[in-house]
Amino acid sequence: MTTDEIFFHGIPKIPYTPDAGLRDLLCFKHYNADEVLLGRKMEDWLRFSVCYWHSFCGTGADPFGFPTLQRAWNEGGAAMKTAKRRLHAAFEFFTKLGVKYYTFHDRDMAPEGATLEESNRNLDKITDLALQLQNKTGVKVLWVTCNLFAHPRYMNGASTNPDCHVLAYAGAQVKKGLEIAKKLGAQNFVFWGGREGFMSLHNTDVAAELRHMASFFKMAVAYKEKIGLQCQFLIEPKPKEPCKHQYDYDAMSVIGFLKHFGLDSHFKLNIEPNHTTLAGHSYEHDIVMASAFGMLGSVDSNTGSPDLGWDTDQFPMDIKNTTMVMKTVIEQGGLQPGGLNFDAKVRRESTDPEDLFIAHIGAMDAFARGLRNAVSIIEEGVISDMVKERYQSYSSGIGRRVDEGSASLEELEEFIKQNGEPKVTSGKQEKYETIFNHYL
Amino acid sequence: MTTDEIFFHGIPKIPYTPDAGLRDLLCFKHYNADEVLLGRKMEDWLRFSVCYWHSFCGTGADPFGFPTLQRAWNEGGAAMKTAKRRLHAAFEFFTKLGVKYYTFHDRDMAPEGATLEESNRNLDKITDLALQLQNKTGVKVLWVTCNLFAHPRYMNGASTNPDCHVLAYAGAQVKKGLEIAKKLGAQNFVFWGGREGFMSLHNTDVAAELRHMASFFKMAVAYKEKIGLQCQFLIEPKPKEPCKHQYDYDAMSVIGFLKHFGLDSHFKLNIEPNHTTLAGHSYEHDIVMASAFGMLGSVDSNTGSPDLGWDTDQFPMDIKNTTMVMKTVIEQGGLQPGGLNFDAKVRRESTDPEDLFIAHIGAMDAFARGLRNAVSIIEEGVISDMVKERYQSYSSGIGRRVDEGSASLEELEEFIKQNGEPKVTSGKQEKYETIFNHYL
Amino acid sequence: MTTDEIFFHGIPKIPYTPDAGLRDLLCFKHYNADEVLLGRKMEDWLRFSVCYWHSFCGTGADPFGFPTLQRAWNEGGAAMKTAKRRLHAAFEFFTKLGVKYYTFHDRDMAPEGATLEESNRNLDKITDLALQLQNKTGVKVLWVTCNLFAHPRYMNGASTNPDCHVLAYAGAQVKKGLEIAKKLGAQNFVFWGGREGFMSLHNTDVAAELRHMASFFKMAVAYKEKIGLQCQFLIEPKPKEPCKHQYDYDAMSVIGFLKHFGLDSHFKLNIEPNHTTLAGHSYEHDIVMASAFGMLGSVDSNTGSPDLGWDTDQFPMDIKNTTMVMKTVIEQGGLQPGGLNFDAKVRRESTDPEDLFIAHIGAMDAFARGLRNAVSIIEEGVISDMVKERYQSYSSGIGRRVDEGSASLEELEEFIKQNGEPKVTSGKQEKYETIFNHYL
Amino acid sequence: MTTDEIFFHGIPKIPYTPDAGLRDLLCFKHYNADEVLLGRKMEDWLRFSVCYWHSFCGTGADPFGFPTLQRAWNEGGAAMKTAKRRLHAAFEFFTKLGVKYYTFHDRDMAPEGATLEESNRNLDKITDLALQLQNKTGVKVLWVTCNLFAHPRYMNGASTNPDCHVLAYAGAQVKKGLEIAKKLGAQNFVFWGGREGFMSLHNTDVAAELRHMASFFKMAVAYKEKIGLQCQFLIEPKPKEPCKHQYDYDAMSVIGFLKHFGLDSHFKLNIEPNHTTLAGHSYEHDIVMASAFGMLGSVDSNTGSPDLGWDTDQFPMDIKNTTMVMKTVIEQGGLQPGGLNFDAKVRRESTDPEDLFIAHIGAMDAFARGLRNAVSIIEEGVISDMVKERYQSYSSGIGRRVDEGSASLEELEEFIKQNGEPKVTSGKQEKYETIFNHYL
Repeated sequence: MTTDEIFFHGIPKIPYTPDAGLRDLLCFKHYNADEVLLGRKMEDWLRFSVCYWHSFCGTGADPFGFPTLQRAWNEGGAAMKTAKRRLHAAFEFFTKLGVKYYTFHDRDMAPEGATLEESNRNLDKITDLALQLQNKTGVKVLWVTCNLFAHPRYMNGASTNPDCHVLAYAGAQVKKGLEIAKKLGAQNFVFWGGREGFMSLHNTDVAAELRHMASFFKMAVAYKEKIGLQCQFLIEPKPKEPCKHQYDYDAMSVIGFLKHFGLDSHFKLNIEPNHTTLAGHSYEHDIVMASAFGMLGSVDSNTGSPDLGWDTDQFPMDIKNTTMVMKTVIEQGGLQPGGLNFDAKVRRESTDPEDLFIAHIGAMDAFARGLRNAVSIIEEGVISDMVKERYQSYSSGIGRRVDEGSASLEELEEFIKQNGEPKVTSGKQEKYETIFNHYL
Repeated sequence: MTTDEIFFHGIPKIPYTPDAGLRDLLCFKHYNADEVLLGRKMEDWLRFSVCYWHSFCGTGADPFGFPTLQRAWNEGGAAMKTAKRRLHAAFEFFTKLGVKYYTFHDRDMAPEGATLEESNRNLDKITDLALQLQNKTGVKVLWVTCNLFAHPRYMNGASTNPDCHVLAYAGAQVKKGLEIAKKLGAQNFVFWGGREGFMSLHNTDVAAELRHMASFFKMAVAYKEKIGLQCQFLIEPKPKEPCKHQYDYDAMSVIGFLKHFGLDSHFKLNIEPNHTTLAGHSYEHDIVMASAFGMLGSVDSNTGSPDLGWDTDQFPMDIKNTTMVMKTVIEQGGLQPGGLNFDAKVRRESTDPEDLFIAHIGAMDAFARGLRNAVSIIEEGVISDMVKERYQSYSSGIGRRVDEGSASLEELEEFIKQNGEPKVTSGKQEKYETIFNHYL
Repeated sequence: MTTDEIFFHGIPKIPYTPDAGLRDLLCFKHYNADEVLLGRKMEDWLRFSVCYWHSFCGTGADPFGFPTLQRAWNEGGAAMKTAKRRLHAAFEFFTKLGVKYYTFHDRDMAPEGATLEESNRNLDKITDLALQLQNKTGVKVLWVTCNLFAHPRYMNGASTNPDCHVLAYAGAQVKKGLEIAKKLGAQNFVFWGGREGFMSLHNTDVAAELRHMASFFKMAVAYKEKIGLQCQFLIEPKPKEPCKHQYDYDAMSVIGFLKHFGLDSHFKLNIEPNHTTLAGHSYEHDIVMASAFGMLGSVDSNTGSPDLGWDTDQFPMDIKNTTMVMKTVIEQGGLQPGGLNFDAKVRRESTDPEDLFIAHIGAMDAFARGLRNAVSIIEEGVISDMVKERYQSYSSGIGRRVDEGSASLEELEEFIKQNGEPKVTSGKQEKYETIFNHYL
Repeated sequence: MTTDEIFFHGIPKIPYTPDAGLRDLLCFKHYNADEVLLGRKMEDWLRFSVCYWHSFCGTGADPFGFPTLQRAWNEGGAAMKTAKRRLHAAFEFFTKLGVKYYTFHDRDMAPEGATLEESNRNLDKITDLALQLQNKTGVKVLWVTCNLFAHPRYMNGASTNPDCHVLAYAGAQVKKGLEIAKKLGAQNFVFWGGREGFMSLHNTDVAAELRHMASFFKMAVAYKEKIGLQCQFLIEPKPKEPCKHQYDYDAMSVIGFLKHFGLDSHFKLNIEPNHTTLAGHSYEHDIVMASAFGMLGSVDSNTGSPDLGWDTDQFPMDIKNTTMVMKTVIEQGGLQPGGLNFDAKVRRESTDPEDLFIAHIGAMDAFARGLRNAVSIIEEGVISDMVKERYQSYSSGIGRRVDEGSASLEELEEFIKQNGEPKVTSGKQEKYETIFNHYL
């Protein structure tokens, strides 16, 4: 096998061709990487990233069905050889798609060995090749994460395992993950606690588990600082699945946990909207809340179906949603060093190799439309003017003192004695919705 | 009208009669107030409270139907006269039921006037009578709260209203509420933010609203301290309804908010399981989480149906649930100064006056059974021994250092290099469930 | 009061002004009633209808708050006088908005009296005026329905009440409703069974209640035929709320019920998407299923939020949803004699009279966009060609015999013995989604 | 390998030992097979069945984790050898547990071959052994089903596949399945349509798919009759997962489908409560509805968590639920030829072989308690007397004519004119709940 080997036969580098017909989907109709909006290139607002696990390791298996996806890079050979072939395929995909970032779990990239030492050696070898390919193509690591959930040893938790021996294994794995993050220049490092929670309260000491999880994060922070790793730590909330309950339930749960244990200055959040909707919130909710608390670090740009109760990790295709997300992202000045990572998988029925391209292109176009819409909303300022007017009472007098925290109940009572009943003010939700619709 | 007036004709003081037949439900079969369990009387573990709004002001109206409940104390007369009659009826009920606490909103107890001043005068008059009746009967106020959601002025929020004039009105109302709490010796004061959230993100400045809400709480804390009010402040989380999203979504959201704004030492949580299940959690979840964070202050003991998406405020009748709640309560040493407040309403179809008794009796018996079950579980120790054994690795060696927060990733790696793969340990969920069932 | 009285001061007849600025929302930017698409005028595809209850009787009260909406037509005077004033206001609204249909419950239009006879006389009088206004304006009744849920007598059910006396009352009310439908030339008659279900299985005989409900429908069919009422009977499914469970849960439940009791030829369905999503389906699901079974009669065009568990009856504003609905409507050749009824209410915070216009305009524009999109999808045929190709194996050979119902398992086995394993065919969901997006 | 081989070392035949201590769970404390209740033995009311797939083929893999369960019978060797070893293990389990029925999918029992012919030969061989073991032990097949969902060929549906070639394969497989059912004396044959639905409406012709599914069922009925197979056909509803939407959504959906296509006399329903709750209903809902329509054939006795949105297939442990189920079962005279099949899996963390026993024992005891409770409820008749009284108005006069379907709206109106307003009757839900609780 050589680096010249082609895995996606007949698929060229994806062009920006806004006027292409509908039967040809191997082109962008909206995403134009170099176009400048609000002083920044589209690609810098969007910072798209391809995920390694779904797109290169995914088999199409589901809880009721066997694998459906046959990928040239996974066919035959030893595990390490397959790992290298997969990496070449991935970089071919990244460069053809024109995406500058990728994300991976340690165990996606290199196979787990019989011992920690062997796993680490495997990871060293494959990341040597990854570094070469990064240097050759200019593609970078948006974030690395450690898979602390798939191996049977983690079935009862990693940092929250009742057996400290398992926690120790997770710690050793994270230590290596941090070293790899440094080696590859990862811009972020993600913790997703898929097994950090419980299946049953009957056998669980919640307080102890939370204490151990905090202790684990503190060790990771200490080691990151020790090795001089310059990247943002991110926690990715998810309410449930695989556990019945995960401690990192949603944005506010994680914020509460981090602040309780004094960890909040070291972490931001990686928000995945498919997790947000599983927590009973609207699509954009956790993005908005995390941003309001200054904690929005990155986004796993995917979607689920609101009528389904599990993580479907679909490609995001709803223009209203992408508009809401990009409006929040612009308002906080961008996501950097985070980005929009496609933690999304083609349906198991989407078995053609071109489907992997079509899905990413469709989602990138959906976000490009969302970005354009959000830019128009912000530039025209109709909605923001209405909102500003709505809250104007806080810009002076007693409102200002409330906003600054210097008012008292006695003052408020006195104000009412002077001014009586407030006037009725319409919230005008339908007006906002109708104006918003004009931008879609 | 005199205090001798009888509203519940033919219903005597409810006796403890464990062997009564099933057709007579006007007696307790399980709740025996003076019986001592684990060194404390049943009534002191349970600290039952009747809520004023559902049980004395409720009409049976629902979003699709008109009032169904005809209550003798609400029939005819001026508002203030009705308010007094209602109070007499309530104290007749409390004493016949043998419950020692009650809870109320300012506007349940006394009618809102045309001005703040008139409302305050109304409240002064009715609470004079309440104080008399408290002294006469020994019934106490578990908690007071201000109704900052029903009046149209609060439709866009109280402390999070875009118009500071409304926030000021809410502040004036809370000031009076705190004074009333002091006058009546309330053991707690609750904030439920039914309108503190949003209906639409389009017209909402989330960060500003959160800041104003925090400012509002700080003013309440300052005034409480100023007047020397000795009671526990409680926030009651609810995820949604009436708002599309409420900031006090669930226990962890409130904890995150309180810690972010430095308010956590002044508040605990009043957990209502019907709100917990609306947030997508299991019945006991927020009680367990709040307790684990040292924040469980009181419980609104009610239930919903897990297949319904709105607040039905049903009387709690599930023995498994009451057992789980009481187990947590005992483990944290009780709820005092909080209690178990029946924030529950008889169904609008339960139109007989006796239904009000039957519902409370059924729920009190359900909690009495839950308490007995939890006491047996804790006294026999089968489950707690199994849990202790499960986490024993944290009691010495590296586990202990993790628990105390003094370990490092390097140590953990070294431990794995020495000890290799952890052994597989069954979580034994079905065993725990089966043993738990034996106590029900 | 005269018919010249103006309730919506300063609001003119709504024009079609596609290039109006965003700050002026009192015009249509997409809905152009007379424009012809696929051989039919927009207004004939859409058949918009305004509902009387939310838009003219709604007060803004919710389960946690008092009325917020002050409407000129509801201010002061006796019930019958208010009813007339309300009707004038409604017709002013219909004609200014340019909507040709309206819908109402018997008890919205005229107040309930102390006896059935008085209620009927009230209804006679007010519908005399309605008939005059219909004749004067050309506005027609899309459908009438009887309110068999709001009065306390119906708290335990109407046609499913355990007390036949209540069922009899409901029957008398429906008899009158059918007569009114005939008098006003209603094109449809709707049954919504908000209390036809149960709050608890413990006190319910499900089989008996279903039998009584079927008997009730049969009586309505008989009386309709007897009086020569020419209109379509419609059942409106809703899964729950106000009941814990309603027998008309969703489209398929109603179809099952109707077929079981031999009633299916007399009824079609009135689908409300906000009810569909409460049943756990996607927005368009019941519209598609009802249409596939030949049972789609009319649509209550509204929406809820997928993250909320109760009926919010919001104005439909999602272009993707309206496109999906209109695609199905066009494919079945239209909804006539049904239509798109706005069973939607302005938010209780939308207190300005203009909000009532803005909400309808926004929703009508959303459906006009949906219609245009659906027409483009159908005219261009890209998607339908792909679907046709996908199912082509059923157009000949063994596939055709399966489609016609004439194949056997033996033949199928023989086919496999001859032809072996089927080939893998991608479902191409992301391709369909991406193409669909291009039409939005 | 011989039939003497022991897979569950050290675990004896499970005794009925009601007074055993809590630390020993390898005994029944409630289930006493031969005890007679209401004239029938416990084992005949309960007709327990063990499922083959979860308990003998399950690996503990979940969407986020690798297998955790190491089973002696799955270790090493060729597929056919493993299949035989697994069968011996299963029969050892059945007999030690004292369960008289089992259920299986064709592909659980024998491995799929490279061709249909090879798969059929595999099935012939293994079922020869199964027949031997059945005859030797007296254990019988409760039901057989064909796995038409796991193989990649079925990814787009089996009988609803857009490619008739796939439907043909499914038909060939069902033909063989019916022959096997006859050979083994299966008492029922189940169809679960896990892939009979859609992932996206965009690429789906719903009407065609429903037509093909009906055609498929008709072929199965024809072949069943042709070969003289005496067993009950059952359809098992599930709302979603793996599809976004499955046509057999819930009991009423299936009833509607069957009646529409004239298939209802040939099928009953196999209700799985974990599917029912995923459809948004309460646990017992579909069992009650199916029974009310005369369509309840069998029960997959398991549970999920109401706060989770996917199929967890947990062992049923809730006494309230088992009581409700058994009450319905007794009221319809039993489930025969159906039964209570444990379509449940031990948690992937429950890795000890004894956990498989403990889980079944715990669930069997939970159902034994439910049975005893239901028998007490029915024998004492307190609740049924109250219900009978509640509906008494239908036993004579106009009520009786309504019940029989011979009344008219005119009569009802006349009745109201004579009798006026009905009286208010309390539904007394809390009274029913409290009485019900006394039986738990």
